[in-house]
This record gives sequence, structure tokens and C-alpha cells, in this order.
Amino acid sequence: MIAPSLSLPQSLIDKIINNAMMEDIGSIGDVTTNIICESGSRIRADIVARKPGTISGLDIAARVFKLLDPLIEITFGANDSDVVDCITPLICLNGDAKSILIGERTALNFLGLMSGVATETKSLVEAISHTNAKVSCTRKTIPGLRALQKYAVRCGGGVNHRFGLSDGILIKDNHIIAANGLGNAIKRAKTYSSHLHKIEVEIDSLEQIEIALDSGADVIMLDNMSNHDLEEAVRIVNGQALLEASGSVNLDNIVAIAETGVDIISVGWITHSFSSLDVALDFDFR
Amino acid sequence: MIAPSLSLPQSLIDKIINNAMMEDIGSIGDVTTNIICESGSRIRADIVARKPGTISGLDIAARVFKLLDPLIEITFGANDSDVVDCITPLICLNGDAKSILIGERTALNFLGLMSGVATETKSLVEAISHTNAKVSCTRKTIPGLRALQKYAVRCGGGVNHRFGLSDGILIKDNHIIAANGLGNAIKRAKTYSSHLHKIEVEIDSLEQIEIALDSGADVIMLDNMSNHDLEEAVRIVNGQALLEASGSVNLDNIVAIAETGVDIISVGWITHSFSSLDVALDFDFR
Amino acid sequence: MIAPSLSLPQSLIDKIINNAMMEDIGSIGDVTTNIICESGSRIRADIVARKPGTISGLDIAARVFKLLDPLIEITFGANDSDVVDCITPLICLNGDAKSILIGERTALNFLGLMSGVATETKSLVEAISHTNAKVSCTRKTIPGLRALQKYAVRCGGGVNHRFGLSDGILIKDNHIIAANGLGNAIKRAKTYSSHLHKIEVEIDSLEQIEIALDSGADVIMLDNMSNHDLEEAVRIVNGQALLEASGSVNLDNIVAIAETGVDIISVGWITHSFSSLDVALDFDFR
Amino acid sequence: MIAPSLSLPQSLIDKIINNAMMEDIGSIGDVTTNIICESGSRIRADIVARKPGTISGLDIAARVFKLLDPLIEITFGANDSDVVDCITPLICLNGDAKSILIGERTALNFLGLMSGVATETKSLVEAISHTNAKVSCTRKTIPGLRALQKYAVRCGGGVNHRFGLSDGILIKDNHIIAANGLGNAIKRAKTYSSHLHKIEVEIDSLEQIEIALDSGADVIMLDNMSNHDLEEAVRIVNGQALLEASGSVNLDNIVAIAETGVDIISVGWITHSFSSLDVALDFDFR
Amino acid sequence: MIAPSLSLPQSLIDKIINNAMMEDIGSIGDVTTNIICESGSRIRADIVARKPGTISGLDIAARVFKLLDPLIEITFGANDSDVVDCITPLICLNGDAKSILIGERTALNFLGLMSGVATETKSLVEAISHTNAKVSCTRKTIPGLRALQKYAVRCGGGVNHRFGLSDGILIKDNHIIAANGLGNAIKRAKTYSSHLHKIEVEIDSLEQIEIALDSGADVIMLDNMSNHDLEEAVRIVNGQALLEASGSVNLDNIVAIAETGVDIISVGWITHSFSSLDVALDFDFR
Amino acid sequence: MIAPSLSLPQSLIDKIINNAMMEDIGSIGDVTTNIICESGSRIRADIVARKPGTISGLDIAARVFKLLDPLIEITFGANDSDVVDCITPLICLNGDAKSILIGERTALNFLGLMSGVATETKSLVEAISHTNAKVSCTRKTIPGLRALQKYAVRCGGGVNHRFGLSDGILIKDNHIIAANGLGNAIKRAKTYSSHLHKIEVEIDSLEQIEIALDSGADVIMLDNMSNHDLEEAVRIVNGQALLEASGSVNLDNIVAIAETGVDIISVGWITHSFSSLDVALDFDFR
Repeated sequence: MIAPSLSLPQSLIDKIINNAMMEDIGSIGDVTTNIICESGSRIRADIVARKPGTISGLDIAARVFKLLDPLIEITFGANDSDVVDCITPLICLNGDAKSILIGERTALNFLGLMSGVATETKSLVEAISHTNAKVSCTRKTIPGLRALQKYAVRCGGGVNHRFGLSDGILIKDNHIIAANGLGNAIKRAKTYSSHLHKIEVEIDSLEQIEIALDSGADVIMLDNMSNHDLEEAVRIVNGQALLEASGSVNLDNIVAIAETGVDIISVGWITHSFSSLDVALDFDFR
Repeated sequence: MIAPSLSLPQSLIDKIINNAMMEDIGSIGDVTTNIICESGSRIRADIVARKPGTISGLDIAARVFKLLDPLIEITFGANDSDVVDCITPLICLNGDAKSILIGERTALNFLGLMSGVATETKSLVEAISHTNAKVSCTRKTIPGLRALQKYAVRCGGGVNHRFGLSDGILIKDNHIIAANGLGNAIKRAKTYSSHLHKIEVEIDSLEQIEIALDSGADVIMLDNMSNHDLEEAVRIVNGQALLEASGSVNLDNIVAIAETGVDIISVGWITHSFSSLDVALDFDFR
Repeated sequence: MIAPSLSLPQSLIDKIINNAMMEDIGSIGDVTTNIICESGSRIRADIVARKPGTISGLDIAARVFKLLDPLIEITFGANDSDVVDCITPLICLNGDAKSILIGERTALNFLGLMSGVATETKSLVEAISHTNAKVSCTRKTIPGLRALQKYAVRCGGGVNHRFGLSDGILIKDNHIIAANGLGNAIKRAKTYSSHLHKIEVEIDSLEQIEIALDSGADVIMLDNMSNHDLEEAVRIVNGQALLEASGSVNLDNIVAIAETGVDIISVGWITHSFSSLDVALDFDFR
Repeated sequence: MIAPSLSLPQSLIDKIINNAMMEDIGSIGDVTTNIICESGSRIRADIVARKPGTISGLDIAARVFKLLDPLIEITFGANDSDVVDCITPLICLNGDAKSILIGERTALNFLGLMSGVATETKSLVEAISHTNAKVSCTRKTIPGLRALQKYAVRCGGGVNHRFGLSDGILIKDNHIIAANGLGNAIKRAKTYSSHLHKIEVEIDSLEQIEIALDSGADVIMLDNMSNHDLEEAVRIVNGQALLEASGSVNLDNIVAIAETGVDIISVGWITHSFSSLDVALDFDFR
Repeated sequence: MIAPSLSLPQSLIDKIINNAMMEDIGSIGDVTTNIICESGSRIRADIVARKPGTISGLDIAARVFKLLDPLIEITFGANDSDVVDCITPLICLNGDAKSILIGERTALNFLGLMSGVATETKSLVEAISHTNAKVSCTRKTIPGLRALQKYAVRCGGGVNHRFGLSDGILIKDNHIIAANGLGNAIKRAKTYSSHLHKIEVEIDSLEQIEIALDSGADVIMLDNMSNHDLEEAVRIVNGQALLEASGSVNLDNIVAIAETGVDIISVGWITHSFSSLDVALDFDFR
Repeated sequence: MIAPSLSLPQSLIDKIINNAMMEDIGSIGDVTTNIICESGSRIRADIVARKPGTISGLDIAARVFKLLDPLIEITFGANDSDVVDCITPLICLNGDAKSILIGERTALNFLGLMSGVATETKSLVEAISHTNAKVSCTRKTIPGLRALQKYAVRCGGGVNHRFGLSDGILIKDNHIIAANGLGNAIKRAKTYSSHLHKIEVEIDSLEQIEIALDSGADVIMLDNMSNHDLEEAVRIVNGQALLEASGSVNLDNIVAIAETGVDIISVGWITHSFSSLDVALDFDFR
């Protein structure tokens, strides 16, 4: 398998990082470090995880330091998507002590958040690895960090749903009302959408499945249905469309959901209510 | 008491919101809504909480819709800092159906995140309301959203530590090493810092307290100490400096920590590992 | 049918317009008008087409003036997508003479360019209106104006291909080489792509069709094939995938291409080598 | 002669390029390439012209790749302003296959557009090379790309009129009305304009020439006049001012216009209705 | 005479103002005012000059408040270019006390700086009002505020030299060396420059005048010459070119310089070493 | 003592510099240099002071050239904070003549302004070096350049007051009115402010001192008091708070003010009415 790739324009990544650095460093700089530390003293410092987890965001964390001080030497002890323990250094830094102290918090905030998302995703993915179901994220993300979070989900073995409103068709209840019915909504979408987009429709009762299939839906999202109904949906659809289960998924119930035979299980909380992974910077003054 | 006030430059708030809208709406717009919904149909919609909590971010959520469509009428059913149930509408929207559908997710992502932070903070604040200790946030925040999260902490009854590296002096272990000792570090800070900044120093053993006091520290952060040591620190310091407890604080242990007599308890996870509050938009097509 | 809708975030549109205004007005302003015209004299001015065409960009042109001077009164005499003659005013402006003079060129440059794209598209769309084929644009667009041009194509009755690299899968010759074969490339795409994206593959010989269908391609782009081969492809595919013809399409040959039975005909020059529609501002000093 | 020089601030060029890359690559990246191509495979690729033309924009195209991936090795096979055939590589790239695939379309869109403008300009310039007249562009440019287009005009041997409203005085019909007459307008301009700016005035009848000369106009634009009137104007003015012909100029009539003896011929369509030069990227996988 | 007009794109002005507000208000807001003042209390406040002077920047100062709080009512008691005493209110504000307190310093910083420039300029302009010489500014301006300073110079009765490197030709000593001589440099400039630009050349000896005139220079800058040499230059040139005196001009020597008969006197310090006018905000709590 | 350190995020510095370069170079470039100078000729050039002074901004000036042309070689002949004569080169440049000519004015404008501020500050600091008083700047700064000016003050030996409204508590007369009295205002500030911020209060009569001390003010600003009253204040306060003198301070009266025993003397004009240091670029063509 091909490793997940962030591959965004560097200008976009740098804008996100510079934005975060401006928050922390501001227009005055690190007043404590500037007052206390002489310029020019060099240190070695290792970024490590304080708890085991799945790593995501190493390039982002490293870029924080590079943008602050291009002279800092950086080597990597792990790759994104790796499951790590608390011993191996993830990133080794060697350079001006002041620069490393100033970048520390911003770099860790990115790495902790992204690795937190990857770790939560991984736990779900592993729980259902015996099934064919995939874990997908949603659009319930942290404002401003969607691209990074979607990538972290991929690092954790999950898949991405549409990125936003503009790269996929998803017909929800309000669209059905606006179009006077499910069939109409799907037909209108099939007529006017890009020929590269599939049509997904969200339904909340089994009765709607037949209409969805007849109208040509490619993907059917089953919202908050019982596992019994999910199984029934799998039986009715019988491979004519992809099935996505959604709503109140957690580590306790995901196995049973996956075993109903649905293709995709979408989970909102991995991107809006995750725990950051505890990462830290260990200094080695010399 | 004066209600917490966001009061940031509108240009800063709008930049954060526009950034989030660009993520979701992109350069193409909401392809589903554009294909399915006719322009010009008006709806009423209410933003409600699906779970009880402390609200923060109502102005941000409303601004999302105003930036999308200045003609949407907006009325508020609650104020930031309110503890709300799941019944009362928080915001009532009345306007073009397409605009409301397009703004929905971005507005809810902000409101859910900020209210999540406020709700978690509030639970800690209430747990220790019988003591004089305050709950404070840290710099372990979501990159790009620190100002909003710090405000949400205030909505939950917490207080803010320094915003970033530039508006407060906090001497940590590495600074102490760099300055060849705690006393030196504090003295240097007292000599060169702004006359409006207090000097805080982070220590991890009781032995350091005397040096800190002798050197003139204004605030002492006690990192990961046992409650017994915290009590001892309170006794030794005896009002000569403020005491801040930090490290591994949660709902289970915060009462005991607060009862040791420390002044401030700082908690990282309320801004990096919180759960978003479940908020939603209920539509009323007419 | 639902009228094409631009519906981009206002901040994105304003950024594009402000960018263009800065080019023309610069950091000094309109030195001629500032020296010669007194402030405060009001005029009426009409934007008209000097040649018939299909209009696109009225809101953009109007927004130029609104951003310059919110007090200018604006009324519309036409809608985007309308086919207009040279008589009816498209936009009527009433306000400060200086503001209208300063905004004139920027507004006309947008309106002329977008209407030019819409007009060229319309001529192709009308030529093949007796067939089921659709006219689609490509990614060969003016850097910085893709969203506006894609919208202009819709105003002319065309459809949009994917917006960019991130909202659709299109496997080209180099991807096929990189994946060691067409079948491998399609299978890899089916495994790892978003479940909302179809898989399109570009081929240049009829022999590749069978592999494409067997591997599950949803759309097949036939690059620079003779009309005879296009007909043959339509026969072979027989509705199992959408067929897109591409390469050297013009007003002379598009009818014959469309009559081969392909579903989509993609045309690059409507967005990179079009003629702007001649639009102008007629003043009525009073 | 000194070769035309772009010499804009790098930050301005990078902003234009990053803007274009964001359009194409977006917040998700190239989903096709990311899924199909392994990281790390290197290719050689040549940018070539598919039709002969005058080249402009090589540095811009190369910068696209450098911003995407600083490790791509770039060598140039031509210079801006060169007239090229379809054989010689214009730019040779050597580096990571993914980076080159991702940057391809953006780089080609810039190079094709700029070379298209240069090529159209060159055809006009060569047609009148036996006269003293120069070909000038106007302010009818692509919003956001004026600096690049003006440079492309210079690469084609043309000259630039004022860049925008702020770097030159051009008195048009509406200014004349606002100033109550041509003479007044010119005198006011001479009094209040920068001492480094000449005064140009647009007239549409021979009668206005005398007033223009008497009032001290430096340049007279003759708008949409017959060749007979242009000749007459040249005779009347007799070197006391520069003469610029404007309006409906094309390859068929430019020779006759130039032979009337006017100094400058301004042409709008070379920047608003040009054809992009057909440029492409040939890959050589190894 | 027509009053000086700022007339820049609002987006440019707002960018400058928002930039300044971010400096002062930051990402946290006015912590003092937020803690101490209740929301909702209204005040009246007048901006006044503490010393007499020539005013510039009223619209900028007012815009600061409007951007902070659109509900503040603003009326003007003076116009830009007015010479004011210390009594008349320049701007009257009526609105939320917090908003006015927060915007105060930013608004005053702009108004004081711009009025300082206008006042210094005015003193020079008045000193030489019996001559035909004009006072001009230079490119020695405050980085980021050139447009505002150039406008302030106009408010003080001065004129603007070229805005920057791109809107005027000024051949200096290094250009002369690079071109192998004054004559060559001028001829090259005449051949390749825009037909709307005059050619100015800087010389430091009278011997160069003849070459400059012969080569067709439109404006000659006499750098740091004695008044005797200036008079001699006026005599030699005799109206064949404009003469600009430059270097070490102050209130003491400008009259003698102007009386030599030069056309323009350029002064750097009015934009780089001026004194801000003392302006203040008087509050009237009610 | 530790040398003052600018240590801002590079993205912030680059934004300020790019902003200034865009003003001077614009969207067209240096038309004079582009026309007259061949590309590729190399020069050596030295930045020197024309008058003695205290230097600040060497890194900023050097960065201007680096951003324009990364190939220019730069060596430093002095450090920020150095007191320099007019002989020693401050910065030596070696590279493409065109790049150096284009960057000259922007680089000098920064260096002159910052060194002007440092030099003015230094003169005040040296005048009172026999006392314990420190010279502090205020928020009366050039919009957009506050960070650079505050740093320049430090280079001159001064200290910085709060940076803006968000990093320090300063209670002024209007806050006192809003809070119904000095004591109330201070108490409210002590209750709700960050535990890292001291409380400063501005008073204008000796009677207020006792209330200020009783309420716990950390710093008292004495606004426009006579030296006699300053002495009295020093006596009353007797070390219980820091004392800051403010209002109408200049080189003539600062010694007497410092000798009253106040701790801090804040001076507005060093950042709003300073003289730029005369710095220039000497070229050495070869």
C-alpha cells in the first residue's frame, strides 16, 4: 500500500504554521527566553511521545523549527503512520537553544493534535480489521485544520469522506424536502452534477432504499439506524450501492456495526472530540 | 461581575471565519445545494444544543451566516456563558435556505468546539467553587484558535494564563539551566523584563521555593507535585507569592488539589483534548 | 432547470476583485480623475454590450463599484446566462462620477472576460443541442480566475469537469506508466479513492477500452481519436461507462463529434483562448 | 538592446503563483497522483511548444516547480523573447515524478498564456517593422495578471502604455466633460500632475488637435479615426506631440495605420482576446 | 483648486488600518478596558488638536472607529488640508465607551503622523509662496505608509514626486556610470521608457547641464548645489527643462533656494524626520 | 548584559519588508534601472552612516536585499546597538548591480528610521545614566512598525512599556470614571486580570497615591507632574510601588526628572517625532 501523503502546496502549510506561530510568539517574541538565554548556545533536543500512539504531523512539527531558524539540523526517528512507543525519539533537533525553545510549544501542539487524531482513528480501524468496513471521517473538524486532520485520519488507517461542500454530492434531509422528494433530488443531482462525482443520499428509514436505488444513488448513508436495520439494508441493497453507517459510533459498538456488512462507517468525534497525544521535547544542554 | 468579552478586532475574527469557510465551501461552492435548491426559498432554522452545556461562540456562529449572506435575520436565544438545556433555541435564523444550508457546518463547528471548551472548564470550576482556587488554561491550544479557546475558558468561569510567549514571563527548567541557576534566572528577568510583567517560575521540588522567594518571584508554578507537597508549599510561601499547581489535573483529583490552598490550577486538556458540545441546526421549511 | 449559481464565499470574490483593483488603482489612485474631476458630481452610467453575446459576471462587475463606493446605486437590466443584444443596459449605475470613472475598467475587464467565455461556450452548446452530448471545460484556465471561468462556462450552458487535482480522479498516461499498466492504475484508484469519486481514465487506443471496463472505470476519456474510432468506442462501451471526447474540438467539427454518441466533449480553448465580449460604460453627465 | 526584464518583487510573483497552485491543488492535493504514484520515483520531463511562437514566462513556469519542490533540477533551453520551434525543449526538469505531475498544469497555464500574448504581439510588431510606429498594450487585461501580461508584451517587442490609473495621465472624453472643455482639462492636469508625468489626451476629431497642442498636451490619442484622418493629424501635429492611434486594430489593417506616420498603435485584444500558445510537458520515465 | 483626494481602494486603506489595530489590540483585546468597563455605556468624545497645525487623515482616523464598531456615530468638524486651532473638535464620536477607548490610540497615531507631515509641509510651502517653486516630497518615507504620507504632503500644499521606482524615470549617478555616460543614459531612457513618462536626470555639476539638454532630459535635478550654482543653472537651462533643487533643504534656507528660480524643491525630512502633531481624544462621560 | 534581540517570526518580518518593497517597486519594477542597466554586472556597495549614531535594523536592511536576490553576498561591519561613526561600513554588499539599486531605498528607509529611534533613545539614556531611572517608550508609535520601533528603543538602551492593549494593565482616567473611582478600578483589575500582569494606574494628583497603594497598584504613572511633586511622590510611595513619570519629557528636562528618584520615564516622541539617521549606500562599480 502507498503511504498517506500530505502533499499540499507548501504555501498553504506555511500559512497554517505561520498563523500558529504568530499566536504564540506574537509581535514581541519570547520575552522570557530573550531576557534569559544568550544567543548562540547550541542544544540537542528530542521530540518524544509520552504515551504510545500512531504518529502524524512530523513534517509539520519539523517545518515549525525550519521556518523559525533554517540552521537547525533535523533528523527523523519515525515516519508518519508509525505506531510508536515512548522511548524512540521522533525528531532530533540540533541547533540554537533560543530557536528551539521558541518553537517548542507550536510544534508540539501540531504534532500532539494530529497524532491524537491518528491514534483514535487507528483504534477504530484495528477493532474492525476483520471486516471489509472502512472508518471514515466527516466534515465535523477543527476550523482551519481540516486538511491536517484529514491527513491524520489517513495516517491512522482511515479514509476520507468528501473534503467539503464542493468536492462531493451528499443529499441530506433538507435537500430532499427542498426538491420535493428523494427521487427528484437524486435525479436532479444525476442530471446536473459533474460526471466525476458519485451521488450519495442520507436516509433514515429502510423504505427509502428502494427509491434511492431506483433513482440511481451510488452511495446510501444510513443515519442512526439499529444494527438490525443496517443488516436489513445490506440485504436489500445487495451490492447495488455502497452503504455508509453513521451516528453515535464508538469503540464499544463499532465491531457490531462493521459486522452488519456496511462498507463505510463514518465517525465525527475523531476530528472534533479527540484527545491530543502527549508529546514533549527533551533537552540536552551541552 | 463583568461578562467575559471577546472584543477582538473584527478583521481578526473575520479572517478566522473566512479561513474556515474557504475550507468547507472552497472555490466551487456547495455543489449539492446549488444543484438541488432553487434560489430564493426562505426558511427558519434554530441552532440548538443536543446536550446540556455552557455556551460560547454565539457571535462567531452568527457571524458565519452574516458573512455569507447579510440578509439573513438573526436573533439570539441565549448569551455566551449561559448554561443551557437542549430545548431553548440558541440562535434563530430566518432567510434564504441556500445560505443557511451552506453556512450550517462551519457555524456549528465553531460553536460546538467553543462550547465544548466552556463546558469542560465549567465542570472543573464548579467542582472547586468552595475554594479560592481558579482554573486556568495553558498554551496547549488548537493552532489558529487560541484567542477563541481562551475566551471560551473565560465563558466557562476559568481564567487565562499568559496568551503566548510575548505577554508574560514564565521561567521553566530549561531557562534555569541556561541561566546557571534559578536565582540568576529570576534576577535577570526582574532586571530586564517590562515593569508591567510579573515573574513566574516553574519548580519541581520544595527546596527551590526559598530561592524563588528570595529572588523575588511573583508566582511559583508547582509542577506535578503530590498534594502533600502542594500543602507544604502553601505553608512555606505563606502569601509571599501566588502558587500555581500544574500537571495531570482532572475532574477526579481537582478538588483535593484545590483544597491544598493553591491559588491557580492550570489544566492543559480543556484546550487540547476536550469534547465538542453537540449542537445542531433544526430547519423549519415553509 | 436551476440557473447556474456562483455562490462562492464573499471573501473569495472580494479578494479576487480587490486584487484586480489594486493592479489598476494602485497605491496612488486615479491621478487623472483626481486632478480633473471635482468630488461630488453625480452621474448616471449604463454598462452595455457592444456586440451580442451570453452574459456572465454581472454580480462581479457590480461588486467592483460597491467595494469602491457603497453609495453607488446599482440596478440590473439582465441576468447572468441571458443572451443579450447591444441595446439593453446590463447594469445601470447612479452615483459619484469619480467612483464610477475609477471602477470602470476593472469592472469591464471582469464582465468582458466572463461573458466572452460564456458566449464561446454557448456557441458550442447550441451547435450540438440536437444530441445528448454536453460541452465541458478543462483545467486549462487563466491562473487565478478558474472559479469565475468555470461559472461562466455554466452560464453558457456547458458543464464543469473536475475543478482541480483534488476533487476528481483522472488517470492519465503518466499515471498508467507509474502504476505499471492501466488495469493496475484503475484498481489502485478504486481501492484508495474517496467513495464519492468516480474513476476516469484517459486512453488513446480502442484496445484499452476492454481493460478499462473490466477494471471498473466509470468514465473513459478518448483522447484525439477519429470520429470513426469514437463511434466504435460508443459501440463497444455500450453504456457501461461514460465516454468523454477530447482534443482539437472546434465549432467546425463538434457536431460530427457529438453525433458519434459520446456523452461529454471537453474543450480547452473556451477558457484559455477565448475572445472577451466587448462591453462598455456609457456615461450620462447631468 | 536590453532584454525585457520582469524584475518584480519575488513576493508578488510568488503570491500570483501560489494563488494559482491553490486553485489547482487545493486543500487536498492531487488525489490521483497521491493514490497511484509511489513517492521517490524520479523522472525527466521537457516542456516544449507544440506550435512555433514567441516565448514568455519561463521563469514563472520554473518557479511553480521550485515552490512545489525545491529539489527539482531545472535547466533552460530558451530565453524569454526567443522565437521557438516545436523541437527544442524550453525547460528540462529532473526530479520527483509526483512533484512534476502536480505542478504540470499550473506551470503550463502560465507559460501558454504569456507566450500567447508575446506571440500575438510579435506578429503585429513584425508587420510594421518597416515603420517607426510601436505596438502598445492597454489596460484591457486579465484581472490579476496585468504585470505578467505587460511583460509578455515587451517580450513580443511591444511597449507598455501606463500600467494603471496611477502612473500616467490620460484625459478621456468624460474627463473633458467634467472639466468643461479640453483646454481646461489639459491645463488643470499640467498644473497639478507630477512633474514626471506627460499629459495624454484622447480626441475623436481633428478639430480638437489645435486646442490640445495649444494647451500643451504631450501625447494625443486618436480614437477610431480613419487612416486619412490619421495622416492629416500627423501633418497638423508635425512633431509637436506624440500621436497614438487606437481602436479596432488587427493584423489586416495595422500596416496601413502604421504607415500614416503615427508614433504608437495601441491594441487591446493582445491582452484580452489572445490565444494561449500550445505548450506541453513530455515525460521520460526511467 | 481641487482639494487633495486620497481615493485609494478601500481594501488598501483597511489593510493598513487593520494591520495597525492588530498591533495595538492583538489577539486578546484591551485587557484593561474589558476588565473595568461594562459593555453598553455610551460616551461622547471629541478628537482635538493640542497644537495648531494642518490636518490630514480625518477619514483614516474615523475609519479606525468604524471598523471597530459600525454603530459609533461620527461627525466631522474640519476637513483635511484645514489649518486648525486647538479649540474646534476635528471629529466628534458618539457610541459605546469600550469601542472608543479601544480605538483611541490607533486613530490618534494615524492622525498625528499625517497631520505632522502636512504641518511641516505647509510651513515650507508658505515660506516660498511668493515664488513659483513647489515643495515636493521624496521616496524617503516611512515603510508601509507611503501612500498616506504622500497624501499628507498634498494636504500641506506640497506636490508629490514619483510614488516609487515604477511610475517615473529618474536617472541617478549610478545609472550614469552603468550606461557609460549621461548622454547614453538619457538616450536609452528616451528610447525604451513609456511614452507617458518624462525623463529626469540627477546632476551635480553645471557642466552636465548641456549634455542633459542636448540628450532631451525633461527634468534636471540639481543635487546639493550652492544657490549661486542654482541661479546659474536656471540661467543656462532657460526654460528648456524643469529644474529641481534637492539636498539639505530646511526652513532657514528654502526661501533663498526658491528665489534662485528653480521649479521644484524636494525635501526628504518632511516624510522621514517630521514631528507628529499632538492630537488627543477628550471624553465626555454621561 | 544580554544584547537586545528582535527574534520575531520571520514571516512577520518578511511581511513588513515585502509590504515596503511593494510600495517602492510596485507591479512594474524599477523602470529606470530596467531600461538602463544590463543584467549581470556586479558591484560592491557599502551602507554607511552619514552622521554618527546608534545603529538598529541591520538585519532588516540586509533582509531586504536577500528577499530581492538571494545571491547577493552580505557581510556586516557593525552590530545593532553599536554607536558608530561615519567611516566604518555597516553592511557590505556584493552582487548584481540591478538588485542592489532596486533594494537601496527600501533598505535605507528601514535602517534610517530604526537607527534614528535608537539614537534619540540613546541620548536620553546617557543623560540620566547616573540615576536608576530607565527610559521607556509608549504606544505612540508609527502604525505598522511598532515591533521594529520597540526593538530600536532597546537597541538605544531604553526599555519597553507594554506592547499594546493586550499585554499589560494600565488604568487611565477614563477607566477610573467608568469604574466609579480609582480604588474600585484597581480592585476590579486585581480580581480579573491575568496573574502574570501587574496593575499600573495613571494619576494626576498626589492625593490619589494613597488610594492607589491601598488598593494594591504595582506601578503608578505620574502624569505631567512638576518635579517637586515627583519628589514628593517618591517620598510617599517609598518603594511600595514603581513610579513612572510621563509627559513633555525632553533632553533638557530629563536629568532633573530622573533625579527626583522615579523608576521609569516614558517618552512618546522617540517613536513618533524622531529624526531618521542619515544612512546611505556607496557604490563601487568595477
